[in-house]
Amino acid sequence: MLRIGLFGAGRIGRVHAESVSAHPRTHLVAVHDPMHEAAAELAGRHGAVATVTAEEIIAGDDIDAVIIGSPTPTHIDLMTAAVRAGKAVLCEKPIDLDLARVDACWAELGPLGGTVMLGFNRRFDPSFAAVHARVAAGEIGTLEQLTIISRDPAPAPAGYIASSGGIFRDMTIHDFDLARFFLGEVVEVQAMGANLIEPYIQQAGDIDSAMVLLRGASGALCQITNSRRCSYGYDQRLEAFGSVATLSVTNQTATSVRRADAGGTEAREPYLTFFLDRYTPAYRAELDHFVGCVENGTQPSPGFADGRAALVLADAANESLRTGRAVRPEV
Amino acid sequence: MLRIGLFGAGRIGRVHAESVSAHPRTHLVAVHDPMHEAAAELAGRHGAVATVTAEEIIAGDDIDAVIIGSPTPTHIDLMTAAVRAGKAVLCEKPIDLDLARVDACWAELGPLGGTVMLGFNRRFDPSFAAVHARVAAGEIGTLEQLTIISRDPAPAPAGYIASSGGIFRDMTIHDFDLARFFLGEVVEVQAMGANLIEPYIQQAGDIDSAMVLLRGASGALCQITNSRRCSYGYDQRLEAFGSVATLSVTNQTATSVRRADAGGTEAREPYLTFFLDRYTPAYRAELDHFVGCVENGTQPSPGFADGRAALVLADAANESLRTGRAVRPEV
Amino acid sequence: MLRIGLFGAGRIGRVHAESVSAHPRTHLVAVHDPMHEAAAELAGRHGAVATVTAEEIIAGDDIDAVIIGSPTPTHIDLMTAAVRAGKAVLCEKPIDLDLARVDACWAELGPLGGTVMLGFNRRFDPSFAAVHARVAAGEIGTLEQLTIISRDPAPAPAGYIASSGGIFRDMTIHDFDLARFFLGEVVEVQAMGANLIEPYIQQAGDIDSAMVLLRGASGALCQITNSRRCSYGYDQRLEAFGSVATLSVTNQTATSVRRADAGGTEAREPYLTFFLDRYTPAYRAELDHFVGCVENGTQPSPGFADGRAALVLADAANESLRTGRAVRPEV
Amino acid sequence: MLRIGLFGAGRIGRVHAESVSAHPRTHLVAVHDPMHEAAAELAGRHGAVATVTAEEIIAGDDIDAVIIGSPTPTHIDLMTAAVRAGKAVLCEKPIDLDLARVDACWAELGPLGGTVMLGFNRRFDPSFAAVHARVAAGEIGTLEQLTIISRDPAPAPAGYIASSGGIFRDMTIHDFDLARFFLGEVVEVQAMGANLIEPYIQQAGDIDSAMVLLRGASGALCQITNSRRCSYGYDQRLEAFGSVATLSVTNQTATSVRRADAGGTEAREPYLTFFLDRYTPAYRAELDHFVGCVENGTQPSPGFADGRAALVLADAANESLRTGRAVRPEV
Repeated sequence: MLRIGLFGAGRIGRVHAESVSAHPRTHLVAVHDPMHEAAAELAGRHGAVATVTAEEIIAGDDIDAVIIGSPTPTHIDLMTAAVRAGKAVLCEKPIDLDLARVDACWAELGPLGGTVMLGFNRRFDPSFAAVHARVAAGEIGTLEQLTIISRDPAPAPAGYIASSGGIFRDMTIHDFDLARFFLGEVVEVQAMGANLIEPYIQQAGDIDSAMVLLRGASGALCQITNSRRCSYGYDQRLEAFGSVATLSVTNQTATSVRRADAGGTEAREPYLTFFLDRYTPAYRAELDHFVGCVENGTQPSPGFADGRAALVLADAANESLRTGRAVRPEV
Repeated sequence: MLRIGLFGAGRIGRVHAESVSAHPRTHLVAVHDPMHEAAAELAGRHGAVATVTAEEIIAGDDIDAVIIGSPTPTHIDLMTAAVRAGKAVLCEKPIDLDLARVDACWAELGPLGGTVMLGFNRRFDPSFAAVHARVAAGEIGTLEQLTIISRDPAPAPAGYIASSGGIFRDMTIHDFDLARFFLGEVVEVQAMGANLIEPYIQQAGDIDSAMVLLRGASGALCQITNSRRCSYGYDQRLEAFGSVATLSVTNQTATSVRRADAGGTEAREPYLTFFLDRYTPAYRAELDHFVGCVENGTQPSPGFADGRAALVLADAANESLRTGRAVRPEV
Repeated sequence: MLRIGLFGAGRIGRVHAESVSAHPRTHLVAVHDPMHEAAAELAGRHGAVATVTAEEIIAGDDIDAVIIGSPTPTHIDLMTAAVRAGKAVLCEKPIDLDLARVDACWAELGPLGGTVMLGFNRRFDPSFAAVHARVAAGEIGTLEQLTIISRDPAPAPAGYIASSGGIFRDMTIHDFDLARFFLGEVVEVQAMGANLIEPYIQQAGDIDSAMVLLRGASGALCQITNSRRCSYGYDQRLEAFGSVATLSVTNQTATSVRRADAGGTEAREPYLTFFLDRYTPAYRAELDHFVGCVENGTQPSPGFADGRAALVLADAANESLRTGRAVRPEV
Repeated sequence: MLRIGLFGAGRIGRVHAESVSAHPRTHLVAVHDPMHEAAAELAGRHGAVATVTAEEIIAGDDIDAVIIGSPTPTHIDLMTAAVRAGKAVLCEKPIDLDLARVDACWAELGPLGGTVMLGFNRRFDPSFAAVHARVAAGEIGTLEQLTIISRDPAPAPAGYIASSGGIFRDMTIHDFDLARFFLGEVVEVQAMGANLIEPYIQQAGDIDSAMVLLRGASGALCQITNSRRCSYGYDQRLEAFGSVATLSVTNQTATSVRRADAGGTEAREPYLTFFLDRYTPAYRAELDHFVGCVENGTQPSPGFADGRAALVLADAANESLRTGRAVRPEV
């Protein structure tokens, strides 16, 4: 059994706690959150303890690995402490909003040879993973054009937006990672953005609608479409257009019911509401990969370098947005 | 050019007139309808003349073939006169409501060796025809179960129902022919019916909802579902379930637009309203087959015998409905 | 925590054991199976014990409820003993193959007022349940025609078929229950069957392909299509055709991937392989309903009477098959 | 009857000739093509004459309007001559490859007040037109993101590519017009291109794969994806993402047949092969609009200015491709 400590008892912390409880070879030992009541409630539900300090988890002899689901500014400190303490780490994206801090972190951690996995859950979604495996197996010939659509059902509140680091580092970063998952390295980034939804997003200096073009080292092109709001649910699609075939991931609903009446036919329900529903199986498969890596002493993928690379693309997109120029990210 | 006379200037007559005008090797010469104004209007629109009597078309030297789209009770007399006059005949279904009259008709016409085609348009629908060709080519292995769904958008008016001969001879007859198109001869019929829609249909001694089971000589089973009303348009589907694959014909819409909002996703429009829209290409292909047969001196399919066989199945279904017993039609 | 004893460590027993382990308020205490090794293996996987005799579960003080997933001939004895011992019962379908035994069983058990639930899992499938709820809420107007398609991916082996009681009592019984779930009582049954797939099914005196028509007390019509083999997976569909709208349950796949190439477009994967995949959420919801009833002292639905009623329809279908007549089941 | 002269007997000329023959109020009088045999063959098929010179059509007293379907370099001269001769003009896109020549042309023609329509057929496609009308009626709220996918089934031959003016002026120009149809004026263009398909396209200095981002004056964003090759047919899709709903145009097939087997389910055929199939109804509706404008003395839309504006966007995309910068087109 892999004994796990969890940082963060918020929305994503609860997702991870559920995954740990459902996994046959992991055990949730402790939860820490500055909001102690939330930690206690979550810990209680899973037969774990809520610690008063984060250090108790870092120092815990009965803990083999930690999952970092606390706010972004805490990621580097917790990750650093955990690796130093010999614990395997599964860290939510992004590593940090500041590339210099990320590099400084790795300068220290890299030589230690610990296990650090980044929580890019979409790589583990059964549909995206199936397309990736089939593309890798050559089923579509050469991948020529990748299309990623990612729209949230509703904008995050103003407070969240203000500290999010902007749409590219907060939301598109998942799509950048997905693009890298399929394309390998990205050599060119163009971005266009707009404020169409909520004034408070613009007031925070952020955009709420974005379109990004990427060029992969192989020559393949990629486009990403983002919106902070989507009337019909959580819109998560991908199309891998190849020279001999194309594979697409379409949206998902809770049931397979369709409706027909005088107003329309073949209507499905609105799509699964948000990442908690849409990516439940992905979070479980992500954890399973992490557990397997720890058990077998292999390096997880996506790792720290993937977390850094996605951040580089987010920064490049921001630069393109600011300058109106295509940016060649410094890898 | 095949010079054509048309009986009937009603709904189905207009469909045929359009097909004749659109066909590159046919010419509409004359139209007859007891409602002379309707005939004149339709003839005028297509550069034809409206005759005062049906005999003018039968006797016309400038007419090679006739299309019979007049009411059912006129079919046999017009067909008989036309064949005697050496004209090729494309006759709408059913030949007649009375099997004895049908047999008497053929006793006379059969020996004359003329060209008689029955207007079972669905055999010529591009989708049904494609499935039929692919089944015949062995693509699905052995055909084991055939499902036919046929629902009209709205019930015909009381006057029409009263003289229709009942749902099996009026509406299901198309499905019986489609079943025979796929199964060959039918050896057993079971029917169940209900009055769920309009009281005037029950008052006419007819049913408005029906389900029928058929057994083909090959052993394959078939089910037909009918309703005189369908909230979402004209419902015309078929599924040919085979031992190694299955081919389905789904419904069709005027455009390929889909809609998503908070109430539902992927919604298509209501289906094409009725047979005039859904089967426009079928009517044209049907005419083209007829023209080709006349040009080449070959016998059209479906022919008179197919019209008779569908009527036999309708009668068998009525008997099953009345007796609650499986009926083995006398072929 | 509801403490549960499980009879049967076969395929369906394993499904129930998984559901019990996954449920937050149930605990699997003991498993019995004449094949002790299978029981031991399953019990071990879930932290339960394997008992040498069935009586140990019946008599166990630490067991509140039993799930009967053993072969059909054992159902009545186990159910009777369990109810007498004051334990709640969740019993797989069918209660028994012999209606007289079923009635004798209930003559004894009914007065005891115990809790007996029948394992008609499809009522708890999220899609079927959603359609049922929406139909009950009046969303489609009056339900006029119900279509149920149920095809297994591959025929059960000869040994299973021989003792299955025939397709209607073994396989269609689920569809009969689903029909009753939507229609209420059924007043007329017509059946047609065929042997198209495996000679050993015919040799066992059974059929492998079936079509059944039902008439509900409300007047609604229903058709059921069954096959023991389906090239494209487990085919489980339903269409509730109403006066103002229609709701359909379509098939389900493991991912939402679609493929396009020169041979075809929009292709989904084969459907979920069999009931273990397709109905995992249904089995969990079924257990949850059972647990809730035990906790609240309410009677579960479907109950014993529903198990009996489905068997009555299976017998009626067999009679219709034998006689070629519509049968009015004696309710 | 509008009497029509046609320039060009190639692929697009034949499409227009068919539309003219099918339209109830137009008559094809004459066809001209430097390849006289092609003109003669096409004219013969439609009861028209093939003229030896283009001037015969320009000067023809029996000709009210011309359709220009000849190679791009001839467009301006023919259009100019026809307008001077008082004939209405329906001209294929693009007006010319050189914006200066386009402006010079209009400097002369504009004051003459003639009727000039540009052949952007997609505006008349029933699906695109329906979405446009519904967006204009406010059905989706505010249009925020427009996605256009346009992929040809196979690359044009090297000779065509060499004189095409490049993918943006030859192929994307349709998408630029479609974008303007939905967005109104475009204020910013970013483009990325690649050579992934045929070396001869690169040797011609052109690209075969492209992605373009546009910003409309309203603030809405748009992305266009192009490829010169598509394994599964002619890929023509659009998504109008709005604040309260989204309308999509999906691809179309010749029939509504779907196939299921052990390899996949719900598979449709490859999409309609190319523009001749996909846009037949669009070409007919385009002609009908042109005829109506001539009959009513109104200005057709899209007109000359739309042809110019699409060319401006193509040039802007080329500039963005060359410089890697966002370009603000000079409208």
